[in-house]
Amino acid sequence: MENFSFHNSVNIVFGKGQISKLNTLINKKNKVMVLYGGGSIKKNGVYDQVMAALKDHQVIEFSGIEPNPAYETLMKAVEIIRQKKVDFLLAVGGGSVLDGTKFISAAVNFKGYTWDIMSKNAPLTEPTLPIGTVLTLPATGSEMNANFVVTNKDTQEKLGMNKKEVLPQFSILDPEAMFSLPERQISNGIVDTFIHTTEQYLTYPAQGYLQDRQAEGILKTLIEIGPKYMKDKTNYDLASNFMWCATNALNGLIGVGMPQDWVTHMIGHELTAFYGVDHGQSLAIVLPGILEVKRSEKAKKLIQYAERVWDIHEGDDNHKIDIAIQRTINFFESLGVKTRLSDYGIDDEKFNDIKARFDRRGLTAIGERQTFTLNDLMKVLELRK
Amino acid sequence: MENFSFHNSVNIVFGKGQISKLNTLINKKNKVMVLYGGGSIKKNGVYDQVMAALKDHQVIEFSGIEPNPAYETLMKAVEIIRQKKVDFLLAVGGGSVLDGTKFISAAVNFKGYTWDIMSKNAPLTEPTLPIGTVLTLPATGSEMNANFVVTNKDTQEKLGMNKKEVLPQFSILDPEAMFSLPERQISNGIVDTFIHTTEQYLTYPAQGYLQDRQAEGILKTLIEIGPKYMKDKTNYDLASNFMWCATNALNGLIGVGMPQDWVTHMIGHELTAFYGVDHGQSLAIVLPGILEVKRSEKAKKLIQYAERVWDIHEGDDNHKIDIAIQRTINFFESLGVKTRLSDYGIDDEKFNDIKARFDRRGLTAIGERQTFTLNDLMKVLELRK
Repeated sequence: MENFSFHNSVNIVFGKGQISKLNTLINKKNKVMVLYGGGSIKKNGVYDQVMAALKDHQVIEFSGIEPNPAYETLMKAVEIIRQKKVDFLLAVGGGSVLDGTKFISAAVNFKGYTWDIMSKNAPLTEPTLPIGTVLTLPATGSEMNANFVVTNKDTQEKLGMNKKEVLPQFSILDPEAMFSLPERQISNGIVDTFIHTTEQYLTYPAQGYLQDRQAEGILKTLIEIGPKYMKDKTNYDLASNFMWCATNALNGLIGVGMPQDWVTHMIGHELTAFYGVDHGQSLAIVLPGILEVKRSEKAKKLIQYAERVWDIHEGDDNHKIDIAIQRTINFFESLGVKTRLSDYGIDDEKFNDIKARFDRRGLTAIGERQTFTLNDLMKVLELRK
Repeated sequence: MENFSFHNSVNIVFGKGQISKLNTLINKKNKVMVLYGGGSIKKNGVYDQVMAALKDHQVIEFSGIEPNPAYETLMKAVEIIRQKKVDFLLAVGGGSVLDGTKFISAAVNFKGYTWDIMSKNAPLTEPTLPIGTVLTLPATGSEMNANFVVTNKDTQEKLGMNKKEVLPQFSILDPEAMFSLPERQISNGIVDTFIHTTEQYLTYPAQGYLQDRQAEGILKTLIEIGPKYMKDKTNYDLASNFMWCATNALNGLIGVGMPQDWVTHMIGHELTAFYGVDHGQSLAIVLPGILEVKRSEKAKKLIQYAERVWDIHEGDDNHKIDIAIQRTINFFESLGVKTRLSDYGIDDEKFNDIKARFDRRGLTAIGERQTFTLNDLMKVLELRK
């Protein structure tokens, strides 16, 4: 394995009833901004639990952080924070609220053109604001990493960033907060978690024997619990295992010292941008195509995946890979997530526009070996029609 | 799974050549004490690498921290630190040096009778000294946890403690530092890592599906690499996977929200105290006995262990458990670690003394269900004659 560093100081507070611990996790001297999205937390009781825990704190609310959080929205929060002298940010929601809050934390004391944080990876020389999170929708791993994605409507850019200065101090993960989630968000979250894992696993052998086992452990757990959980949304054990898998898939641990792919995500982002399909749906469409197109480069790990994750031991290597890809598709479909473009009413009309966009961005040699080309992109899209 | 918190802020710096990073990991304003053991680091080149990296730092050395670090030795370091105004501790060695350094960090500014830190879990109200570590012998996980064990020769106590205030800031893990280790230390370390994992895994089902997979991943990796590594001590890939397994077995992750046993360790400590067998040897003797004596209470996890870790799918449940225990024994023996008391020339003469000691300490209802009795202890010892 390659040299690596692993440093993740997030305090994870996991379990039912843990939202009440906000009372002690945040200093009473802090002036807290509670940030959330469209108000689902008011329906599922999370808002009430948060406010009850913070009854002795000074609290300001900021709602309306949308899916794919918009720079314009987040800058409104920044203005209020500066005006009201807020000094602690509590993000309550899913990946979008958490990501948006990280950007806000970075932006509040930033000197210069704020979007440069995203577009130019501008260094954060001024203090960021401390962040805590209450997670209500697992998938992005944002609760235990320093990643955030923000969309700029003006420039039509959706950019990702990683800044250690905005890593949350703590994250509360209460599986009961997921009990009222719509099915589609759960199924998308399971697919997203699965593919966060495969992006760090289905590459080439790199002597990270333990990392491989850890990745396989997440995949096998998702396969074990996913379909059951879709039928039993208020099952605490299933919910808690899904939640913990999502965190572990993207807290850095399974990827240390290992090659990573992420092409499925790059193509998926474009499908979302062009056609509006959900993020999880877009990944379920793309992954089988990538595995097919790159089956020879990924062969060793695909065979390992077939044998260890899907218990496929019959037939030759090619057969094992075929069955493993088919089982992956079946798994996504079993969750209710369709895996072909045509399932979403998408034809090949805009394939060349997608290609042009990859070309313009210089995404012409990507993936774990930098061998995924525009030609491969077109093959993947054709295969998934 | 049960509610839990997971908070581990140690900065892990992993890989060959990483010792040179000490130069930037420790502030040049710090006055550094480098603590080590009997001088093996002078033979394997680690000492030279450390000193080269710290050439711009003020450095004081403290050597002679023994295996099972002694309170009396550690207090000598405390005196020097107070006198010389040392403000950073760099532990270079294995678990004993790291553990001893944690005690020193806690003791330097402690007001009151210092041994109370160990014997009475006295709170650390004064600042502790920051710690960095360079690990040369994996097994105890001390590089990524806040545990430490210290022996008091006067009172004949060997006590363990956990204090978050002495968690290392960083730990450098360079697998090449292990290349010159004696075989016996490696085999003991592999057994110790294996049994740190089983203590958190071979209990009863607790719906921590991911934690189970993570534990199985460590066990399977050790089984895969252990015997190969014993024959190929300078194989970097094998060394690095063992080193990373040892850290992951005891950094808290696989145990979150799960029942834990630790009786094998409790009995093993006594075998070491009474007969002087190595820690790893003592565990290899005891574990098969515990699994046999508690086979019905642990049956569900033992069957899971048989099926998932050892790929045993033939026969009935009892047969699977029998084979799994035998394979575990065979694995330890394949590393060169003997598993019977008689292999070490130990007979049953002092069994009653061991029992009396457990009784005196109140260790009469221990293990994951608090059902392991003095009677069970005697059965284990008889079985492992």
